[in-house]
This record gives sequence, structure tokens and C-alpha cells, in this order.
Amino acid sequence: MGTQKAMLEKIMQTMHVRNKLLRQGLAECLGTLILVMFGCGAVAQVTLSEGSHGLFLTVNLAFGFAATLGILVCGQVSGGHLNPAVTFALCLLGREKWRKFPVYFFFQTLGSFLAAAIIFAEYHDAMYDYAGESNELVVIGNHSTAGIFATYPSKHLTLLNGFFDQVIGTSSLIVCILAIVDPYNNPIPQGLEAFTVGFSVLVIGLSMGFNSGYAVNPARDFGPRLFTSMAGWGLEVFTARDCWFLVPIFAPFLGSIIGVIVYQLMVGWHAEAEAWIKKNKSMEENVKLNDVTSKDGSSLLT
Amino acid sequence: MGTQKAMLEKIMQTMHVRNKLLRQGLAECLGTLILVMFGCGAVAQVTLSEGSHGLFLTVNLAFGFAATLGILVCGQVSGGHLNPAVTFALCLLGREKWRKFPVYFFFQTLGSFLAAAIIFAEYHDAMYDYAGESNELVVIGNHSTAGIFATYPSKHLTLLNGFFDQVIGTSSLIVCILAIVDPYNNPIPQGLEAFTVGFSVLVIGLSMGFNSGYAVNPARDFGPRLFTSMAGWGLEVFTARDCWFLVPIFAPFLGSIIGVIVYQLMVGWHAEAEAWIKKNKSMEENVKLNDVTSKDGSSLLT
Amino acid sequence: MGTQKAMLEKIMQTMHVRNKLLRQGLAECLGTLILVMFGCGAVAQVTLSEGSHGLFLTVNLAFGFAATLGILVCGQVSGGHLNPAVTFALCLLGREKWRKFPVYFFFQTLGSFLAAAIIFAEYHDAMYDYAGESNELVVIGNHSTAGIFATYPSKHLTLLNGFFDQVIGTSSLIVCILAIVDPYNNPIPQGLEAFTVGFSVLVIGLSMGFNSGYAVNPARDFGPRLFTSMAGWGLEVFTARDCWFLVPIFAPFLGSIIGVIVYQLMVGWHAEAEAWIKKNKSMEENVKLNDVTSKDGSSLLT
Amino acid sequence: MGTQKAMLEKIMQTMHVRNKLLRQGLAECLGTLILVMFGCGAVAQVTLSEGSHGLFLTVNLAFGFAATLGILVCGQVSGGHLNPAVTFALCLLGREKWRKFPVYFFFQTLGSFLAAAIIFAEYHDAMYDYAGESNELVVIGNHSTAGIFATYPSKHLTLLNGFFDQVIGTSSLIVCILAIVDPYNNPIPQGLEAFTVGFSVLVIGLSMGFNSGYAVNPARDFGPRLFTSMAGWGLEVFTARDCWFLVPIFAPFLGSIIGVIVYQLMVGWHAEAEAWIKKNKSMEENVKLNDVTSKDGSSLLT
Repeated sequence: MGTQKAMLEKIMQTMHVRNKLLRQGLAECLGTLILVMFGCGAVAQVTLSEGSHGLFLTVNLAFGFAATLGILVCGQVSGGHLNPAVTFALCLLGREKWRKFPVYFFFQTLGSFLAAAIIFAEYHDAMYDYAGESNELVVIGNHSTAGIFATYPSKHLTLLNGFFDQVIGTSSLIVCILAIVDPYNNPIPQGLEAFTVGFSVLVIGLSMGFNSGYAVNPARDFGPRLFTSMAGWGLEVFTARDCWFLVPIFAPFLGSIIGVIVYQLMVGWHAEAEAWIKKNKSMEENVKLNDVTSKDGSSLLT
Repeated sequence: MGTQKAMLEKIMQTMHVRNKLLRQGLAECLGTLILVMFGCGAVAQVTLSEGSHGLFLTVNLAFGFAATLGILVCGQVSGGHLNPAVTFALCLLGREKWRKFPVYFFFQTLGSFLAAAIIFAEYHDAMYDYAGESNELVVIGNHSTAGIFATYPSKHLTLLNGFFDQVIGTSSLIVCILAIVDPYNNPIPQGLEAFTVGFSVLVIGLSMGFNSGYAVNPARDFGPRLFTSMAGWGLEVFTARDCWFLVPIFAPFLGSIIGVIVYQLMVGWHAEAEAWIKKNKSMEENVKLNDVTSKDGSSLLT
Repeated sequence: MGTQKAMLEKIMQTMHVRNKLLRQGLAECLGTLILVMFGCGAVAQVTLSEGSHGLFLTVNLAFGFAATLGILVCGQVSGGHLNPAVTFALCLLGREKWRKFPVYFFFQTLGSFLAAAIIFAEYHDAMYDYAGESNELVVIGNHSTAGIFATYPSKHLTLLNGFFDQVIGTSSLIVCILAIVDPYNNPIPQGLEAFTVGFSVLVIGLSMGFNSGYAVNPARDFGPRLFTSMAGWGLEVFTARDCWFLVPIFAPFLGSIIGVIVYQLMVGWHAEAEAWIKKNKSMEENVKLNDVTSKDGSSLLT
Repeated sequence: MGTQKAMLEKIMQTMHVRNKLLRQGLAECLGTLILVMFGCGAVAQVTLSEGSHGLFLTVNLAFGFAATLGILVCGQVSGGHLNPAVTFALCLLGREKWRKFPVYFFFQTLGSFLAAAIIFAEYHDAMYDYAGESNELVVIGNHSTAGIFATYPSKHLTLLNGFFDQVIGTSSLIVCILAIVDPYNNPIPQGLEAFTVGFSVLVIGLSMGFNSGYAVNPARDFGPRLFTSMAGWGLEVFTARDCWFLVPIFAPFLGSIIGVIVYQLMVGWHAEAEAWIKKNKSMEENVKLNDVTSKDGSSLLT
């Protein structure tokens, strides 16, 4: 046992990454990997089993609780954003430094990419079985499997409505997340943030999943799409549906801005201003008190 | 970074609403918006996908967790009622001032109205695709979409049973909420109220949703109905089914009164009376103790 | 406002029930009412909508979370048993006094009875619509509605297996509940007991619901059955399936005994004994310490 | 009452097992029994009711929450592993002693075996009813019931992909569990670990259940399989599908190793190293402080 402990300690010291931002990037990478692995795994299960082993509700539950687990895995180290649109919102509000943004974006996308690879390995046989005799990986149409990894719009959806869809979905997510982590609003016991964000992701899937599968996250959509383009689906994953792939990359950032404005305008700034007024008042009172007490020379003793 | 912080602080001070009741109204508006946006969004998803992207259970889960999220967003500021029937019950018990009631009612209805507009934008293409060739927004009958926004009774339901349905549903909700927030009963850890109210809404949907879709909330029903009357469904949304729209506006308040009486009669007043007796006793004892101790002149020192 | 407060205080004092056991009985009555109203309501919704507004899973979720809400409503006053088999188990272990047992049994059954009446009112129109042209309330067979209220065995089930089914179900419930409330095991934060019991009820429904609908609770089954016998279904509710109604009344108590023995044998008594040994040791040490210290006369000062 | 208390105390002392490892084994046995009884019970319910009383989602929910309940029942005594692969991971990291491993493995398998027996009793009639006229218990093919107890691969699955499936599933589980119980990461409030592990099991079932039913646990799979071989299904349960039964016994341990490496490499060792550096620094500072303060001779007074 002694030897084992010593060995483990040595490994720990060897493996230790000294750069904090890199450590945070690694953590975000694992967190996003968990989100996308479980989420896309559920899509795979529903698609490939043709509904016998799952429903759309299954996918919603999986993405929701996968978000919870992803945040729990990395939250203490990196904050558990798992989504460049979330990092962006927190940068906008000055709660995270802007230089974190590109690093997080990269590692979140890397995590998604790796998650897609794992799901490809997990369901390799099932995917070729589902493809049928042609044995081809199809992007759009019957027996298409690209939708397991990245999102594609429903037939009824125009590009404009699709853009709105991603903006509305992301801004809803951001409003919920801002409320959950707002230090001036502070509605839930510490340690339950991850669960509540998971419920937010679940609810978005329950109500905004029909148009295009609620990516609301540039990394979650682009990482797996990149993987599919390399793993046999080809460049059609980018060109399909009028280059749809650009929508879940850019629309979420607009959604992020709108979410920040809506939450701050309706709740956030008022709560902050109240806290700020309270603090200033008590400081003023302290000053007055000091004035009074210092006159009789006793204030220093307390 | 310094510039960003300064700018954000300036915006905060500019945007700050000084009137407390107005701030609370804005918060209720956002909270109810979240409840109705996610809830009606789920109805839209189930209806428009014709069951491929959801079940009635999906709607129940969405309304339940949407209530949780709505309360979390605004609860610290406004109490998170999201429902005029809840505000009414708390006024009845003297826990909120009566002048809050019309203000909250207005902002809750406004939030619902805005939520309906968002869902209309979100599912614009899907709604017209679902309407079919006629391209019309229909209130009652095949391919009707008005039920996405406001509630309409099932065919089997008489107006009388429908009225009972809303009274029973709302009184059940009020009993649960009163238990959750009763300061003398106090059954759950602080910060979990929102989750528990969400479970109550979920359970009501699981068991009382078949008759007319469990509005149990005048604002949640009237706001979106008003929106549909303006957005293309016309005045039939009010006249349909013998002016059904009046039922989910008035019946919940009767349900509120019954819920208050039932809970207080079976649990609430006894818990309060016990707390009151205990307090009086300890005060009496303190008085006696003071009588004794003051005789030997030492009571003032402690 | 002053008048309202005074009036409310006066009502409180008038309504206050001075007998503690009666107050507890009233609370159990309301708690069980909530359990059975939401639970049987969900069965009604699934049955009467012929699956369009629910699944068997809906019923499981409803009974689970209804148990949570029922416990939250009455738990602080009465302990939130909601089930004579639970009261019985706690009496067996000496944690509740035996004279509570008949009182709780009565009020739990009364609550179930009233809940059945509420669900009958709630779904009055739907029930007669479902009955079809005959307009009759049927106990067994096509369009039977008695199963909404009380449990009836599946066709495949013999009375012996049905008895085992209730024993196994109830003993599983009791093992979980004993673990949750065991003062020597104590696995969850205070205030979450109700949620965890709800999960237990949910899981029992997910895995042991096919045979006969998992009554596992004499009051939950007998109260609504009595109601149906009076409300139009007649005495067949008692005689059907070889007097099945006796099984969910008596088997749960045997299950309760087995659950107590299994939990205590595998975990409970060991945890208790450990706590007991620890306490005795520290007392002995204190005695020794006192012996030593008292010799040099300093023990009284500490 | 006095007599009852005395009797209960006497029973407690008689039953008390003095060996700690044996007590832990008994607790693991009951915990795993609960996991497998509810989990396999749900599979039985879905299979035997042919979908009328459950979905694959039902099975996922049952295994997830059954894991929660199993951990709650035994966690305080034995740690609540319920899975030899979990015990193995904790031994690898030096958090449990290696001699616990065979003992836990045995009792976890025993608990699974007993759980299978209970489910066999619970659904005895339903199982023979489902088997049809032949009245035989079949392992593979139409009306097979062996899959209620142990896992069998889907038709599309090769042995190699099946091996990967179990490795990926188990390593995902281990990553989540390590994050949840990591003393240096520590993301959730104490007492909620069991719930979070339950969510992990749920999510694995939602996304990795299609290939072979996500055993990810040697005891959960082998115990019930052994039972079926004895209860009438015969040795085919071992030989079926190229001795598939070996996969869920051995693959999870490889998954365990990979899970440990992935989590530690991406998050764990860094968090630990940071804590270690912090501690060493504060110790160094203390030393320095002592050096300084001892020079002017005042350090002993504080």
C-alpha cells in the first residue's frame, strides 16, 4: 500500500500542468466531452434502434443530465461553461476575462470532437447495420446518420426561422444560467447550480427541439460535424441545407447578447443596484458613526 | 477590462428602476414569460411534430420545470408567484399586501402575452406547415393550433365539470404551495421551494390534464389567448365552446379560496397556533423568571 | 390590513384543535388525500384518454411525486406516513407508539376515500363518456373504470403470486424508508426525506407495477374501493377476482415485518450497535477520566 | 413499550456482527440487491407486459434511481459501491484497501443473485404466461425471458464492438463517480452523491443502452445469470452468443482503468496537486512565521 501511495503521488507530480488556463481548458474539454458523448449517444440510441430503445424525450433527458454531469466534472476547475455562448455571456458581463474565450472555445470544440469519435466507436456496428445494404454513411434522407452528431433543420424550416430558433433557444438558456449564477440574485443553495442548469437544458429540449434539434452551442455542433466530415460522411455535412452549419455557430452568440440584455434589464441590474445602494449606505453610516465615536476617542478600541 | 467594468456600472445605474413594486412587476413578467414560453413551447412541439418530438408527458415535464426556472429567475425579487391565483391566496392570508394583486396580475399577463409571441416566432414556419394548404390558423377542429397557446376543453367536458376541473386543480396547487412556504410548517431546506413547486405543477399535469389542459392560472391562459386573437386566429378564441375562456380566468380564484381553507383547516392553523402558544408560554416564563431574578437585583446585568 | 390580520388570528384560535393525536390524524388525512388524488388522477387520465394523455410511466411518476408532496404537506405534524404499513413498521421498531396505529389507519383511509370522491368529480364527464352507450360504471372487463380507484390483479396473476407481489413490494418500500429515516444510518441531508421516499415509490411502480398495480398500502387501496362501492360500481368491487380486495389490505403488513427484519439484519442493527458501543465507550472513558482527575481535585473546575 | 424496547435492544446485541468487513459486505449485499431487484424488475415489467406497462426509458429510470436507493441504504456502512468495477477503481487510486475487493465482489454478486430470485418470484406467473403454450424458459429468440436477468447483445453487435461498448460505458461511469467523490474537486453538497450517481447511471442507460443493455457491472450481470442457469434456463445462458457472458465480467475492469486515467489526467491530478502545493506553501509560511515570531519570543503566547 505504501508503494502504491508513493507511486500515485509521483504520477500526480509528473502529470501536473502548471499553467492555470491550460488546466481549465483540459477540464472544459472533459466536461464538454461528457455533455456531447451522452447527448449524441442518446440521439444515436433513438435513431439506430428506430424508437425501440428511446424517444425524443430520452434525448432531452440525456442532454439535460449530461450537462449536469459535465458541469460537475469540471465546474470547480473551469466554471463548467461547456458552451462558448455561455463563456461569451460571462465575458460580456465582465465576470470572465476575454482571453479565456478563445481558449475555452477551442477546448470545448475539441471535447465535442472527441465525444463524437467515442460515439462512433460505441455504435460502429449499429450504424452500419442501420445504413443497410449500401453500407454508406448518409447525411440527408432515409437512413441518414449524420444527424446523430450535428444538427440539421427540419424540412419545414427556412434559414431565417432557423436563425431565430437558435437565437431564442440560446437567449433562453442564458437568461436561466445568469439567474442561477447571479451573485446578487442567488436563488439556489450552493452546489445545486449544475442540476439547475441541467433542468434548463432539459426544458429547452422539451419545448424548442422540433425545429432543428436545439444545438444552442457552437462547440457542441461544430466539433461533431467536423468529425463526421472526416469519418466518412464527407463535406456534405457543411454544404447541406444552404450551409446550415453556420447558423448554430453564429446565432448563439447573438442569442447570448440578447439573453444578457433581457435578464439584466428585467432583474439583474436592479438586484445589483439595490445591493450597491445598500452597501454604500452602510458605508456612509459607518463613516458617520466613526465621526461621532472618534470624537470621544473610543472608536479605535472596538 | 477597466473600461468595460466602468461602462457596465454606468448602464446599471441608468437602468435602475427606483420603484420597488415596478421592479417586482418586471421580475414577475420575466418569470411568467419563462413559464409560458417553455410550457406552450412544449405544447407546440408535441402538436406540430404530431407526436414525433414529444408526448403529453413532455408537456407536463416542461410546465413543471419551467415553473421551477421561472421562480428561480424572479423569486428573490418578487416572490415568484407567476400566477394571480397564487398572489390572491397569499393576499387572503395577509402574507402579501392587496395592492400588489392588480400589479402582479397585469405583469404576469404581460409576460404570458410576450411568451406567446416568442413561441409564435419560434414555430412560425412549423405552424403554417402544419396548417396545410389552406394556410389558415384554426381555433377548433383538425389542424387547429390555438390550443398551443390557450386551453380549450375536451369534447367530453361540460362547462360545469370544466369549472370544477379548474377549481380542483387550482386548489390542489394552492394546498401544495402553502405547505411549501408555510413558515410554521417549513418542510424543505431553503432554496428548494422552486423545485418543489415545479413538482407540484408537474403532478397536476400528470393527473388533471385530460379535461382541459390544466391552466390553473388566469394569466397563463388569458395572455396567450389575447395574443392569438390578435395574431390571426381572430375573436373565435374567446367565443369558442360557450365562452370557455372565462372559466380559467374565474374558477382559479375560487380554487384559491378553497385551497387556503383546506390547508389551513387541516394543517396550517394548528401549526400556527402551536407556534403561537409556545411563544406565549416562553414569554410568560420569561416574565416569571424576571420577577424572581429581579428580586435579588441581578436580572439587569445579563 | 389590521382588520384582516386580527380576523385571521381569531379564526386560527377558533379552529385550533387541542388534541395532538387528532391534529396528527387530520394532517395524515390531508397527506394521504394528496397522494391518492394525484395518483389515482393519473390512472384516470391514462385510462380515460386511452393513452393519448399519459402512459403507465405517467402513473409511476404521479404516485412517486404525489408521495413526496403528501409527505411535505403533513410531515412536520404527523411524520408523513401516508400508509398504515409504514406506521406499522415504525411501531414494530418502537419509534412510534402503538396507539397511533389505529388512529393513523383510520385517517389515512378517510383521506383516500375523499381523494377518490374528488377524482370522481374531476373526471365525472370523462368517465361516463368512456363508459359508452351503456352509461354504466363497470368493475371488470371492457371500459371498466373501477381500476382507476382501487387495484385489481392482471389476468395472469394467481392469488398466491398476487400475495407475494404485495409482500415483496411493501417490504422493498419499507427497506428504503427505514434506510432513509434511520437515525444511525442517516444518509441524506435533512429535508430531503420526502423526495427520497417519492423516488422509492416511483421505482417500485417502474419495476413492480405490472402484476396488480402496486398498492403496497392498505389505506390507498381500501378507501377508494369503499368509495366505488358506494358511487355506483356496487359490491362487485369487493367480490371480484376471489375477493382480491383482501390481499392489498393484509399482505402489506407481512411485507412490513419482512422489510423491518431484512433491513435491520443487514444494516440497521449493526449501525445501531456500533453507535451504542461508541457511546458506552466514551461514557466509560469519561468515568475513568473523572476517577483520575477527581483524585487531584480539579475535575469540577472544567 | 418498555418490554418492546428491551426486547429490541436484546435482539440488536444478539444480531450484531463484530467483524467490520463482514458488516460492510452485508451492506453491499443489500445495496446491490436493491439495485438489481428494481432494475431487473423494470426489465421484467417492460418485457412481460409487451410494452403496455413500460418503455426502455422506464428501465433507464429504474436502474438510475435504484442505484441511488441502493447507495443510500448501504453507503454509510460500506461506501455504496454496488459494483466491483467501482471498488476496483477506488482500490487503484488507493482510496480503498485491496483486500476489500474480493469481499465486496462476492457480496455484490450474492446480492444480485438474490435479487434475481426475488424478481423470479415476483413475476413467476407472468413469466410462464408470457412463455406461452410451450411453458419453457427460453434464452434467445421469441418469448425469451433470460434477458430480464442478464444482458445479451443485440443482433447487430460483434463481440469486439460489444467489448468496446462495455469499456466505454464503464469508463464513463467511473469518470462521473470519481468527479462526484473526489475530495479535491468536491462539486456537490454532502449527502447528494447518491442522487448524482443515480443520474450518471440513468444517462448511461439513455445513451449507451442499445448495444447490449449497459451492464457496466460484473456483479449485476453475473449474479442474475448464475441464478437463471439454475432456475430453468440452463447452461445456454453462458454459452449463448459466443460466451458473451465473459464480456460484462472482464471489460468493465478495463473500463475502470481507463476511466481512472482519463479523469485523473484531465482534472483529478491537477486538483490534487494544487491542493498539495497550497498546503505545502502554508506550511512553509508557518515555518517562516514561526522563525520570525520566535525571535522576539512571542510565538508561544498565541
